[in-house]
Amino acid sequence: MKLYGYWRSSAAYRVRIALNLKQLSAEHISVHLVNNGGEQHSQAYHQLNPQHLVPTLVDNGANGELNLSQSLAIIEYLEEKYPQTPLLPSNIEHRAIVRGMAQAIACEIHPLDNLRVLQYLVNEMGVSDTDKMRWYHHWIVLGFTALEEQLSQHSGIFCFGDTPTLADICLVPQVYNAKRFNVPLDNFPNIVRIAQTCDQLAAFANAAPEQQHDAS
Amino acid sequence: MKLYGYWRSSAAYRVRIALNLKQLSAEHISVHLVNNGGEQHSQAYHQLNPQHLVPTLVDNGANGELNLSQSLAIIEYLEEKYPQTPLLPSNIEHRAIVRGMAQAIACEIHPLDNLRVLQYLVNEMGVSDTDKMRWYHHWIVLGFTALEEQLSQHSGIFCFGDTPTLADICLVPQVYNAKRFNVPLDNFPNIVRIAQTCDQLAAFANAAPEQQHDAS
Repeated sequence: MKLYGYWRSSAAYRVRIALNLKQLSAEHISVHLVNNGGEQHSQAYHQLNPQHLVPTLVDNGANGELNLSQSLAIIEYLEEKYPQTPLLPSNIEHRAIVRGMAQAIACEIHPLDNLRVLQYLVNEMGVSDTDKMRWYHHWIVLGFTALEEQLSQHSGIFCFGDTPTLADICLVPQVYNAKRFNVPLDNFPNIVRIAQTCDQLAAFANAAPEQQHDAS
Repeated sequence: MKLYGYWRSSAAYRVRIALNLKQLSAEHISVHLVNNGGEQHSQAYHQLNPQHLVPTLVDNGANGELNLSQSLAIIEYLEEKYPQTPLLPSNIEHRAIVRGMAQAIACEIHPLDNLRVLQYLVNEMGVSDTDKMRWYHHWIVLGFTALEEQLSQHSGIFCFGDTPTLADICLVPQVYNAKRFNVPLDNFPNIVRIAQTCDQLAAFANAAPEQQHDAS
């Protein structure tokens, strides 16, 4: 497998954690999201991913090369193809709760705070840097406030029970980003506790942005 | 089952389509997203869904009432609990492609254009109505441009092959919203064709906003 990603991309970070938890290896290919006007917009990358987003997972498919986009779809693919070290509980109700927590991050926080959106706010909407950061903090605090409440109900050592799941895979990159932009996390004790627990596992630690070959 | 939703919510619309395709009935309870400062912020709804978002699906769980949030998590739950009329292909590679297309809408377009984001742009960022609509169109056109290319590769009568899937369930509400806000769709022939095909099916037509009891 080949994973096209970028060290600071939250979505690529998620897939790196999933690969590590399942002890799957992939060649990591860097798509620099800033240099050269953003390499994700290149003709070569467009052939792999018309969304111009990272990550893309390339695997050998039944009919030749299979290019997969969208991090949660990629992780569900890995879960179905390589069921060892499951990333979702076996119980249908529990699976729904875990997917719900993962999507509370992946559909409600991250899409609003990713690079292209922040760039659009500044370059196209004329938003000041101060207002950009206010926007950034707002969506993380709003999302984390709801998630913290869900975690007080469902968490064990991890977001759901005592093994890492898709929810932890989404949580850790979002906490990394929150810290990077100095979002105060004092009101989110479960979130902070779980992210710290995860970061002590090699699967999470080795997936961290600074550990990637393209980190700068 | 009870579905807490709102006639114009794209996310609730998705779950209504899924229920109809699977011929499952649910009591539909309206949470008015505008009146009374937004009923999704009420204390009573907070107990069901701390994210203050619709939809919430309430089902009888193994340990009492089960409250599920996030439309794609809810639909995957319905898919696993009620496998008749599958909404995902059986082939693992095909499932990944369908989930990827669904998430290209649910994670890249809709989160940027939903009500609370538009309200924040105007009320908190001081963005003009003109710029708000420019923002709205931008993310739909960007997302649809990539999706149209994926559809030219994967679509049959529907987004993937010749039966409706999770991708169509996400596409139709997004097209409904694009039309509502006059986004030109001339460059997206596959998207327009597939949405028209879907709208001719009772499962989609009966889920449309104007058919709901709380439509006004």
